Amino acid sequence: MYSPPSLERLINEFARLPSIGRKSARRLAYHILNQKAESAQNLAHALVDAKDKIRPCSRCRHYSESELCIICSNPRREQNKICVVEKSADIEAFEANGIYRGLYHVLGGTLSPLDGIGPQELHLPLLLERIRGGVNEIIFALGSSPEADSTVLLIDRMLGDTPLKKTRLARGIPMGSDLEFIDELTMLRAFEAREQI
Amino acid sequence: MYSPPSLERLINEFARLPSIGRKSARRLAYHILNQKAESAQNLAHALVDAKDKIRPCSRCRHYSESELCIICSNPRREQNKICVVEKSADIEAFEANGIYRGLYHVLGGTLSPLDGIGPQELHLPLLLERIRGGVNEIIFALGSSPEADSTVLLIDRMLGDTPLKKTRLARGIPMGSDLEFIDELTMLRAFEAREQI
Repeated sequence: MYSPPSLERLINEFARLPSIGRKSARRLAYHILNQKAESAQNLAHALVDAKDKIRPCSRCRHYSESELCIICSNPRREQNKICVVEKSADIEAFEANGIYRGLYHVLGGTLSPLDGIGPQELHLPLLLERIRGGVNEIIFALGSSPEADSTVLLIDRMLGDTPLKKTRLARGIPMGSDLEFIDELTMLRAFEAREQI
Repeated sequence: MYSPPSLERLINEFARLPSIGRKSARRLAYHILNQKAESAQNLAHALVDAKDKIRPCSRCRHYSESELCIICSNPRREQNKICVVEKSADIEAFEANGIYRGLYHVLGGTLSPLDGIGPQELHLPLLLERIRGGVNEIIFALGSSPEADSTVLLIDRMLGDTPLKKTRLARGIPMGSDLEFIDELTMLRAFEAREQI
């Protein structure tokens, strides 16, 4: 022990964050100590504030500070298109290139019986309700994994013979990759070549 | 704009930290939102708490929560040896291998006239006072740069003909590197081969 306890605690907390090792955590902590108290307070405040204010949008489950998220409450978005994503972070990959102007639906995962994620764990009733409320295209953007495929299949079956354009992203997406990290161009091509189910 | 303002603020605050880009900052923010409120609060508390409690040790200027730091107040450390480092983070490199059992002195920088760091900006009077108070070895661990060399030279001149063993780390340390990131073995060898000035 050669550092004060509050410094060790700060290092431990930083090291809990994903992809931040012990050495990086220490470097971050030293950085904080070398800055004005204001920077630490700003980060601390942003942490508590975001966690406090953000809740799921009541319509699409995207992160929101109000009843409806920024996208759902934007009247200029195409109200009759829903893009189904696994998590809020995946929306970033679409919005970065601006190719899509419809709405989203955040499922909260994909079917994965081994991890205990069944249909009940996903926000499916909400999605079906929205689709029945008048939507003419549903786009599945769930990455390319067996779990994603069976999720699409399940929703497709639940929808039955609805007169609805159902597409999914073109198979240009590399297998096993995380949608959140797809580059804009690949996402653009995959979106444009989306295929009829 | 597709994320709520408090989320964007959190991403901005994370992106201010060193070596955390926009994409990593976003990922960290999403991680926080996916965790229990407690994790965000713990990190927030650790930030404010560390910044609040930690001040320089009145003797060696290392990070401390009390008047004297953990190292200065440890009676089992050799009280007649002082290892002079640039910043608190450098102490880590010594303490990780446990080869050194003496005290430290954190200078707060090295002489760098171009950056406006002259002798007044370093904690020199405090160091001279400590040395005169009865020390028989002073070890300079300031990395290998022209600024470090001139800092050692200056302190050596200020000390004059004091009957004192003055050493510096062996020149095994690669040029231009940051002491904070030296691996333990290199640090060990450099410490053992420290040379008389």
